[in-house]
Formats: sequence, structure tokens, C-alpha cells
Amino acid sequence: MSSLPKRPKFSVPTAPSTPPAPTPAGSVAPLPHEQLDTFRRDGHALIDWIADYWTALQQHPHHFPVMSAAKPGDVAAALPTSIPEYGRPFAEVFGETQHAIMPGITHWQSPSFFAFFPANTSPPAVLGELFSAGLGVNGMLWATSPACTELEQHVLDQLAGLCGLPQKFLFSSSTGGGVIQGTASEAAVVVMVAARKKLADRGLAGKPVVYCSTQAHSSIVKAAMITGIASGPDDTASVRQIPVDSARAMYPTRLKEAIEHDLAAGRAPCMVTATLGTTSSLAFDDVLAIAAICRKHNIWLHVDSAMAGAAAVCPEFRWMLAGLEHADSYCFNPHKWLLVNFDCDCLYVADKAAITSAMSITPEYLKNAASAAGAVVDYRDWQIPLGRRFRALKLHFVLQSYGINGLRQYIREHIRLASLFADCVKADAKFELVDHSRAMNLVCFRPRPLTGEKPEQTDVRTKSLLDSVNAGGRAYLTHTVIPYVVPGDPALRTVLRMSIGSTFTQEQHVRAAWDVIQTAC
Amino acid sequence: MSSLPKRPKFSVPTAPSTPPAPTPAGSVAPLPHEQLDTFRRDGHALIDWIADYWTALQQHPHHFPVMSAAKPGDVAAALPTSIPEYGRPFAEVFGETQHAIMPGITHWQSPSFFAFFPANTSPPAVLGELFSAGLGVNGMLWATSPACTELEQHVLDQLAGLCGLPQKFLFSSSTGGGVIQGTASEAAVVVMVAARKKLADRGLAGKPVVYCSTQAHSSIVKAAMITGIASGPDDTASVRQIPVDSARAMYPTRLKEAIEHDLAAGRAPCMVTATLGTTSSLAFDDVLAIAAICRKHNIWLHVDSAMAGAAAVCPEFRWMLAGLEHADSYCFNPHKWLLVNFDCDCLYVADKAAITSAMSITPEYLKNAASAAGAVVDYRDWQIPLGRRFRALKLHFVLQSYGINGLRQYIREHIRLASLFADCVKADAKFELVDHSRAMNLVCFRPRPLTGEKPEQTDVRTKSLLDSVNAGGRAYLTHTVIPYVVPGDPALRTVLRMSIGSTFTQEQHVRAAWDVIQTAC
Repeated sequence: MSSLPKRPKFSVPTAPSTPPAPTPAGSVAPLPHEQLDTFRRDGHALIDWIADYWTALQQHPHHFPVMSAAKPGDVAAALPTSIPEYGRPFAEVFGETQHAIMPGITHWQSPSFFAFFPANTSPPAVLGELFSAGLGVNGMLWATSPACTELEQHVLDQLAGLCGLPQKFLFSSSTGGGVIQGTASEAAVVVMVAARKKLADRGLAGKPVVYCSTQAHSSIVKAAMITGIASGPDDTASVRQIPVDSARAMYPTRLKEAIEHDLAAGRAPCMVTATLGTTSSLAFDDVLAIAAICRKHNIWLHVDSAMAGAAAVCPEFRWMLAGLEHADSYCFNPHKWLLVNFDCDCLYVADKAAITSAMSITPEYLKNAASAAGAVVDYRDWQIPLGRRFRALKLHFVLQSYGINGLRQYIREHIRLASLFADCVKADAKFELVDHSRAMNLVCFRPRPLTGEKPEQTDVRTKSLLDSVNAGGRAYLTHTVIPYVVPGDPALRTVLRMSIGSTFTQEQHVRAAWDVIQTAC
Repeated sequence: MSSLPKRPKFSVPTAPSTPPAPTPAGSVAPLPHEQLDTFRRDGHALIDWIADYWTALQQHPHHFPVMSAAKPGDVAAALPTSIPEYGRPFAEVFGETQHAIMPGITHWQSPSFFAFFPANTSPPAVLGELFSAGLGVNGMLWATSPACTELEQHVLDQLAGLCGLPQKFLFSSSTGGGVIQGTASEAAVVVMVAARKKLADRGLAGKPVVYCSTQAHSSIVKAAMITGIASGPDDTASVRQIPVDSARAMYPTRLKEAIEHDLAAGRAPCMVTATLGTTSSLAFDDVLAIAAICRKHNIWLHVDSAMAGAAAVCPEFRWMLAGLEHADSYCFNPHKWLLVNFDCDCLYVADKAAITSAMSITPEYLKNAASAAGAVVDYRDWQIPLGRRFRALKLHFVLQSYGINGLRQYIREHIRLASLFADCVKADAKFELVDHSRAMNLVCFRPRPLTGEKPEQTDVRTKSLLDSVNAGGRAYLTHTVIPYVVPGDPALRTVLRMSIGSTFTQEQHVRAAWDVIQTAC
């Protein structure tokens, strides 16, 4: 049994660092960037370390408790106490660092990571990130590296085609286009700012109000707090969280009522966010019905499909996109479940001028001929920061390295594994499955209530099952609370979430997790 | 003369991709993550490509026009028109991609890049980014990878010590602490939201107003637009841009007057941003004088030292930090001029609760024991996005690999080169130097006005000199407009900016740039 992960050319130092050998009087020791041969050697070793790590996660899972067992302060205590006077060899720094941090790593790349949502990585994505770091360009303007902007436009159009998105979101066929944001949270802030600007341009007075379901991601409320639309998380007059039906999808009629109520009260409905695949339980709002309401009142419709959007690479899952042609913006995160490492959220808008007119400022030192001529896209006007990395590379590398078939095969396999897991739950009388009819890659379930058990007791038992599973280190799941776990009952109940979507997850890992859960129950 | 950059193991494909060889019936071709040997080979080759690229930038500059000469659409036209049906070998994808994009790259890593501001990278930083991508953890909560949070806290404290920052910004000795943001723009949004929350908590009515100098970075106005404090870039009642003195530093007395005027008018002064090293011309606001005004009126003081802050690693440049002990927040970007690749902005706050109380929302699926116990820092509450990369690794690797001496040597050399360049300008009667008495790494200059030349004509001549220098491809500078180029004259005049701070820049490159400029004049 090998010790893990192997460190082919790196060794962990056993003694404190010593200053480098004295250099001739008047000269100075070469800095790391003056020694590129060292970089080659260290880089090769690190690539091997990563390949070894990914391999070991699959072959020696008992060496990698999926959820870190570190206690607060453990990692900090193992780190070097100071910045050294003289630079140290990278191999030494790396060895020491990985020694200190690995016990504090929760292994999101473990094939037995079923918590929260996936945070995919993959060989071509990592190489894309590496290439981007090596080029080190800042793509804030088209002019500051035309390739950075043009590859992004090109690849986002291709990805939209691959996912069957409406033509209105493509540069090549519309006034719209796509942009890579860091996260769906940032996308929400950007479109909320644009939606508010549109209100102002229409001369609508009244305090702006945004809408989403009770099941929408917390980033929508947070965006409202950041943009100043909401005064805090409890400002329910400014962020209306619309109730959901038994499938945890927003009630369009309740949305309609809320909007009409606000209009009557002199407030200004600003933006509705529909969610395709909620984080909590993968519920799907009815975009078609919601869009009809938004159009009637001229309200910005944003559609957030952060994780589930990846499934649209397969035609059979595009049912969720019905009505998207009426949305103003749409985003999903290839960094969740489409093999691109964090960060890569793809935001599409139907009217790019709505974004840029809300976000653009041009100080003199950024003025240039290409921008002034209006011939190019300057992505800094599409995002919160000014600077930006060349993130399109990793997305491009993934799309080209997997191909359409490879991506579909990847998604379909995870969805098959989720169905398999759901079947296991269904077949076991000790457990209860939350409706899995819109089968995707998240399975919600819980121990079946015992006869006479109070609902609160079931919740406690559910949480303690979770703690027991996670403490074992062989699988990592998380929980949530949702309504309608019991048909007809809108009370919030605790359920476990089995989120299947890690790059290396295979059938054996899902079956092993089920074994662990059964044993723990 | 080598062809560039060498591609040791990658070849550019000459024929279109073909589908992979058929696999046995019922089986499917392995996906890239199922073939880690390929990843090793490709990764080694890419590391070598980067080392070759950095070497070639230095040894064969004539192959790399610093500013890309690409025309709009050039890059897009060279890219593959579609996502292939079947995945393609990475070597083929990479070869084709670099062939298409390299003519569209503006070489920020060129030693002759003197435009905008530096966007450093370095071997340990690139390896840190690579390591982070391979681990693929999401550090949104302490619990989702304790190492990600604890290394960040640890390293930000160490960096604060290295830069001589006030104790109030260290986790270890105060109620404050540091966090890595993507950019100073995001940091500005976060602190503005916190400052507004503080106003609300104090029950201050009135529309909030933020203050900065006319020379502050555009991100301050943009942050005001995003947070909804300003209705647009021209909302001068909400963002007061205070006039500057002949050194382009904010007039504290004018700030005081503006605040008193707003208070009298029933508005609510919310936040003042002082800049240490403006982007436009590296002017330094007087933090001590500004802080006195802020304290009197209980206004949040944010200090933005995005580029120049790196110089504080050298004690002799800490004069700029005088008064920082009275600030509420401070940020600088190691991704500009401290050898860490983008993105890495370090934001320090004196009162971490002010940030988290303004930014925190906790949905059920993120609840966990460590957070509930208040024993840990959850960085998602310190930033706009929920998810976050393990960015502390690259910062840690840089600090440990260069050491205190290496970092100081690096900064001092660039500042020496800037002085050398300033001396060249001063010694040449055809040129005019903008005051360089607070010598740092940016030199502003222009051609000396000819006898009888109108100021507008000098501006045109300055811009055409710039275009001529940049078109040659041997150096890349940018321009700005600033007041007081002519002593006593507040009119904005065009000047060239020689920004010295690229990782590989040496004396020869600065001298060569000066030769190019002289020849072009």
C-alpha cells in the first residue's frame, strides 16, 4: 500500500531552511524567475503529483477521508511561522505546504464527494488554467489581448449551440451574447444592476423589488443586499420570495399576485429570477409561465441554472429550458458539472447594451481606438471587476478535448447513477425517497419516520445519520430542509442530499456510499 | 534564431480532426480524466512551453510585438468552427489554439511591457495556481476545506507583517483580518456595502454619499453604481470626486467642505476612499489628514493601494502608509506588482464583523457545526461570490520562494529603473518630465512643447508619439490625462506613462524602450 499521494520529486524538509550559499560580493542570488530550469523540473513534478493525487483518490480512498477531520487551528499550527529572510527552493516549500494542508483538505475531487454540488475539474481544464497563468494576460479590454476576448465570444457562442440555447443569446445572431463570470452570484449582481438601470431609463419611480422563489439560491438575496435593493436578508418587501408548489417550483400565480400588489403600492418590480435546478433540492421553476408574467409587466427575467444547466448538452434534458427564449438573461456554471475547474460561470444576455450601459465607465487611461470605434467587445463593462483572467481557455480545452459525445456521456452517466441510487433508496423500507420524477443528478432522501415518531425526531435522526456517514470519511453528503417531504405538508423537513457529479465518480462509488448509509442507519 | 515559442512535444495539426478509432461494441472511448498518463505527458509539455515562452520573450523580443497587432475578428477567424463530435487529443487542441491565439496576445509578461500597470506572474505563483486547480476545492466555508481558509488567514497576517501594516488588520492581534478578493474593484464593493450597513445601523437617514479624489480609480465610481449609491457615472451628488493639488493628491480641506456641505443638506456621508498610488499618475493621498476628517464624522475610510502597496515590503517606502492605523480598510494587489498571478487582491479590515454583518446569509444547506460555533472564519461572508478558489497557495508560494530579501530586491530594482528612466527624460531637452519626486515605479512624461505650440497640439503630438512607439512592437506604453503637467495649470494634459513592474523587466529593456521613444520623437 503506497503512502499518498506520492511525491515523485518533492521531499518534505526535516530541518529549518538555511540561507542560500553566499554569492560573490556585490551580486545577489538569482530570483525564481531567473531560474526557469528549476521551474521546468518543479512543474513536471507538480503535474505528476496531481496525477498521483487523482489516482490515489480513486485507488486508495481510505487514505483520504472525504470530509476533512481537521479541527479549527490544526492547519495553521502546521504552517511555517514566518516568511523566510531568503527564498527557499520550491520543492521544499511545496513539500512542507502539502504536508501541512492535506489533512485540512475536504476532497471535492474524491469520487465519493456527494456534498453540496460538484466542483468539477479535469485534465484539459487544469491545463487551460495553467496555460492562462503562464500567458498572464489581462483581458479587461479587447485591446489588452484580442485573443482573450475573441476566444471567449467564440466559445460562448459554441457552448450556447451545444446546449440548445435560444439564438437571442448568441453574438453571431443577435444583439445578445455571453460572458464568463466568476460565479452565478456575480452574474446575479450584474443583471440586477442592469435591470435596475432599465427601470430608471423607463422613468419608473418607486422602490425596486426583485422576485424569486423561497427555494432560490441565497445569492439572489445577497445580490439584492449588495446592490442596495434590499436593506438586509430579512427585507422581504424588497426581495419577495414566492411560495412553491409540491415540486418546490415557484407558483406563477403567487408571483403574479405579488407583482400586482407591489405595482398597486407604488413599488417598481425590477427583476424575477427563475431557477432551473435549485441548489437545495433541484426543483425546476416553470420559465414559460413566469416569462408570460414578466413580459406583461416588462420585468427583467433572469434564469439561474447554475448546476443543472450543464445537462442541456443532452437534448433529452432540454425540457427544462422551455420558455427560455423569453428570458433576458441566463446563466449556468461549467465549473460545477461540466468539467471546467472553478471559476467559470457562463452568463448570457439578450441585450448586451443593457449590461454595458449600466456598468460602463471609461477613464482616459483605458481609452483606445478599437473600443472608441465600437468594433469590439470590452468585457470589463460586463462584470464587476476591471481585470480578468483568460478563462475561456479552460472552457475551450474541455469542449474540444471531450467533444459532444464525451460531454453527453459524462452527464448521462451521472444521471444514470442518481437513478440507480434512487432505486436503492426506494427498495429499502428503512428509507424514504423525496420525489425523483424529474430525474437529474441530485437525490433527496431520509430515514423513513418510525411509527409514532414526531417529525422533529425524524429530523434529528436524519442529521445524526448524516454525521455518522460523514465522520467515517468514506463518503460525504450534506443536508437541507425542504417543504413537501410529506405529501401535502408544507412544513420544512430535514433531508439528505446525494449530489452525484464529481469528475471521477463511478458506479462503485455510489454503491459504496449506499452501503455506508445503510450500515449507519 | 528559434521559432517561437518552441513547442517541445506539441505539434500543430495540419489536417482536420478524425473520430477516434472504433471501440468494441457496447464500450465507449475513455474520457480525458480516465487517461491520466496523457495528462502527465501533456502537462510536462505545457510546463516546458511556458518556460520556453518566458525565455523567448526575453531572448527573441522581435518575435513578440508587445501590443498585439491583431485586427478585430482575426483571432475568431482562426479558431475551430465547431465543437467536435468526438474528443480530440490535447496536444492537437493546444497546438491549434496557440497557433490561433498567439497573434492576438498582448504580451503582459514581456519585459518590454510598460503599459497600464503590471500583471505579474512568476514560477511559484503559476505552480500555486496549478496546485489549486488540481486540488479543486471550494473554500466557501471553513468546513468545506479548513486548509483553504486557515492558510489564507495565516498568510495574510504574515503579509501584513511584511508590509508593516497596522496591527488592527491582523487576525492574530485584533478584531480585524484579511481576505483575498479577486480585484480591488470587488474589495471596493464589499467595503462600500459594509460602510452603508454601518450607516443604517446608526440610524442615519439621508442618501449615502461616497468620496474620493478626481484621480481615484474608476472602480470607486463603479462600486457606487453597483451598490446603487450612484445612479450612474455622472451622479456627482452621490460620488464626490474631490479636487487635487499640484501633486494630484486629494485636498483634505476640500473633502472636509464637501462632507460638511452634504451633512448640512441632510445627506449621509458613507465612505471616503484615499488612494495610495493612483492608476493614472501614481499620486498619493494624505491618509493622515483624510483620516482625521473621517474620524470626526464617523465615516468609513478605505485606502486603495492596488499597485503601489507592494512597495511597502521595503521599509523605505512605508512613508505612504502614514495614518493607515486610522483606516477601516486597506487593499493592495499582489497580482499587480508582487509576483502573484491574477487574481489576488488582499483586503484588510479593522472590524471583520462590519463586513460579515453586511454580507452574510446562511441557507440551511450551508449550515455546519464549526460555523455555528463561531469558531472559524467563513470567507463567503467576506466577498460577493459564494464559491472561492484556493488562492492563498500562490501567495504563500511566492512569499516563501522569494523570501523577504528577494521581494525587496525585486521592488527596489524596478524603482531604480524608473529613476534611471526619469533621469534619461530629464537629460533630454526634447522631453519634459512630470514631477517624479515621490519616486516609485511609474514615470509620466511627454514631448516638450515647441515654442508657440498650442497645448492641444502638444497633446496630439504626444498621442502620435505613443502610437508610433507601440506600433513598432518593441515596447508598449499607454497614456493618461492629468492636471498640473504645467506647474500651476489645472487643465488636463496628455502624458505618456512608463510603468515599470513586469516580472522579467531588466535595465536593458528600459534602455531599449527609451531608445525607441527617442527615435520616434
